[in-house]
Amino acid sequence: MDPLNWKIKDEPIIHSLLDMDMYKFTMGQLIYTLHPTVPVTSGFINRTKTVNLTKHISKEELKEQLDHARSLRYLKSEFHYLRGTNEYKKNMFSEDYLNYLSTYQLPEYDLSYHKGKLKLSFSGEWTKQTYWETIALSIVTELYTRSQVKKFSQIQRDAMISTGIQRLYEKIKKLKKYPEITFSDFATRRRAFRQWHEYVVNIVRDELPDQFIGTSNVKIAMDQSLLPMGTNAHEMYMVYSRLFGNSREAIRYSVQRLGIDWWNQYDWGLSISLTDTFGSDSFFRDFSFESALRSKGFRHDSGDPIVFGEKVIAFNNKLGINPKDKMIIFSDGLDVDTIIKIYLHFRGRIKVTFGWGTNLGNDLDLFVLSLVVKVLMANGLPTVKLSDNLSKGLGPVKEQNRFKKIFDYQTKFFEACKY
Amino acid sequence: MDPLNWKIKDEPIIHSLLDMDMYKFTMGQLIYTLHPTVPVTSGFINRTKTVNLTKHISKEELKEQLDHARSLRYLKSEFHYLRGTNEYKKNMFSEDYLNYLSTYQLPEYDLSYHKGKLKLSFSGEWTKQTYWETIALSIVTELYTRSQVKKFSQIQRDAMISTGIQRLYEKIKKLKKYPEITFSDFATRRRAFRQWHEYVVNIVRDELPDQFIGTSNVKIAMDQSLLPMGTNAHEMYMVYSRLFGNSREAIRYSVQRLGIDWWNQYDWGLSISLTDTFGSDSFFRDFSFESALRSKGFRHDSGDPIVFGEKVIAFNNKLGINPKDKMIIFSDGLDVDTIIKIYLHFRGRIKVTFGWGTNLGNDLDLFVLSLVVKVLMANGLPTVKLSDNLSKGLGPVKEQNRFKKIFDYQTKFFEACKY
Repeated sequence: MDPLNWKIKDEPIIHSLLDMDMYKFTMGQLIYTLHPTVPVTSGFINRTKTVNLTKHISKEELKEQLDHARSLRYLKSEFHYLRGTNEYKKNMFSEDYLNYLSTYQLPEYDLSYHKGKLKLSFSGEWTKQTYWETIALSIVTELYTRSQVKKFSQIQRDAMISTGIQRLYEKIKKLKKYPEITFSDFATRRRAFRQWHEYVVNIVRDELPDQFIGTSNVKIAMDQSLLPMGTNAHEMYMVYSRLFGNSREAIRYSVQRLGIDWWNQYDWGLSISLTDTFGSDSFFRDFSFESALRSKGFRHDSGDPIVFGEKVIAFNNKLGINPKDKMIIFSDGLDVDTIIKIYLHFRGRIKVTFGWGTNLGNDLDLFVLSLVVKVLMANGLPTVKLSDNLSKGLGPVKEQNRFKKIFDYQTKFFEACKY
Repeated sequence: MDPLNWKIKDEPIIHSLLDMDMYKFTMGQLIYTLHPTVPVTSGFINRTKTVNLTKHISKEELKEQLDHARSLRYLKSEFHYLRGTNEYKKNMFSEDYLNYLSTYQLPEYDLSYHKGKLKLSFSGEWTKQTYWETIALSIVTELYTRSQVKKFSQIQRDAMISTGIQRLYEKIKKLKKYPEITFSDFATRRRAFRQWHEYVVNIVRDELPDQFIGTSNVKIAMDQSLLPMGTNAHEMYMVYSRLFGNSREAIRYSVQRLGIDWWNQYDWGLSISLTDTFGSDSFFRDFSFESALRSKGFRHDSGDPIVFGEKVIAFNNKLGINPKDKMIIFSDGLDVDTIIKIYLHFRGRIKVTFGWGTNLGNDLDLFVLSLVVKVLMANGLPTVKLSDNLSKGLGPVKEQNRFKKIFDYQTKFFEACKY
């Protein structure tokens, strides 16, 4: 847990196949069980258009890190850990799925540097290519960090880390003033570098034992005895929308299909819905009373968080469901002041907690990029994401427009992606 | 070189008998050769009266660390290092002296906690007890640091270290603006803790390779390939003043005697005089033309540095000696701004360099004490130090007054000891 001891050269970035987000496994099991062979292509996207990554990261070093990740296999103790995971449901991972993972290797990737553009994509059976997402993001993000610090002298690097330590300390002091605020670490994909991520989690674990409730990173959860946190992602909604035909209804009802499949797999334990893939308004319009009544809550990942929370409260109130029984996990571009503001706004009215990513794991006075790996094609069709923030929309414009009509999308909210 | 990796518990503070100031060996050889059996008592003095050390450091932990230091012997490679030291004079340490060190063990000490006072003293043959000085100071200082941080949480400790790193970086940036300023590390005795000291030296070595010219710490010099720096200390003058009888002349001429013995041992290489033991005015009055002509320079350790430097320049000018051929090593309570101020004042007029101690090795937002180990008795008589700062005077008042008369001491300068 010693960030000053960080070796930036020749060090593999990914050192374990558990060094990814928990939701890859919760989604991964559903994919393996129900839709393993769907052909899917995911692609790396740099939303920070001002930075040309090909000038900062060489193709060779990126290839070396991706290849190193491909050389990894699950270790015995990592299997034991997954098999022993029962926080959400008893034996939540089936032997069948674990057996699949036992020989799992990250599949081949497509990498090219073309006209100053870094192109990285992952094609193949969904059950194989899905695991690249956070791995690829952690690798590219850490290589970008390395590119920023490699010209630093020792004291410049140490001073940068010192800045990070002091900012972390400020966050902790602020959060200690609100002992009811709980949060988890969601930083894996945008962490400055692995050792820093491990350090930050270790510190908040020790400093805020009653407030810090877990981490999305399975390896860190295992190493630091924390709750591994995660449900599902836009990926599921985006692929599901292309699995049952191209009709208006097939697309619109895919959201409910996913809800049903997910509930059948994980019951109440993981019944947190991500609402914004095709606009939250449409999600709530179609969300059945039964689903609303039984579910644990919702995850917010785009749009104004206060507006969203108020929408969730109004939605429940309208159905005669007590919002205090429900939870919102806020996970969009948080910093400590936003966390406190959201908490103060909603306290006593609905349960809130926070999935804190980039600003927790990459707040070191470095330039931070908005990188994502998103599904581009599924089942031979282009995929679409609308989200509650126009700047986060994905997919061919024509398809986006069709989806907007299908989901009666009216959102006007636009905010440039912070991270 | 990783200060965040610092273990404060159960860790020996002194790990090598070279982990002391170089001047202990240059003085040690003279003592061994000329006055080995003189009975001497040195004592630990806390000049920071507001802090009662018995409340911060337990007798047991202090005893444990002192005993651990007593368990150390010189290692083969450490001997090779001393034998190979020739920067000041070819084969500067004789085989006879090295042979003496080969079986050397720190002698017994007297430790008591009495009426809220920590009493620590070292009695016996000068050639044996002399080596305790910086060892004891490093131990007490680091134990005091530990007492301050032991209730810190990890992040508080790391934030404290981060503050130190950022202050160090500021010092480096300021010094880089004045590439003619040179300095050495004199922090051993008041370093916050050993690993921090090693870290700081490593950073300034790498960042200011043409400005950082060496360290007083022999072990660090050895480990980091630096020039070990040191000449002599008040200890020599204080003991010498009691070696040749109690007459006025015997005392006053002891200063010149030491100068002659020192020259005979080390020639020009170590001909840096510490002038303030009985007041610098007296020193210069008695300093012969021959000594002035041949010597390398002077070390400033008390009183106003600007006044002192002007005195040295005037002294040389008066004798027709070009002050530009001489050097002053400033070593009293320096910080980076004082260093720059002194440098700017004297540049082009006399060579200046800096022995930077406490503020280099203990600038971490910790409370810093003014601790010394000083000779109290020699040859059965109480010893005296007057210095150019009334606050640094030592010895029984009656003896101090007698010495003031003997040395025609007129100094009125008073300044509380910074460190």
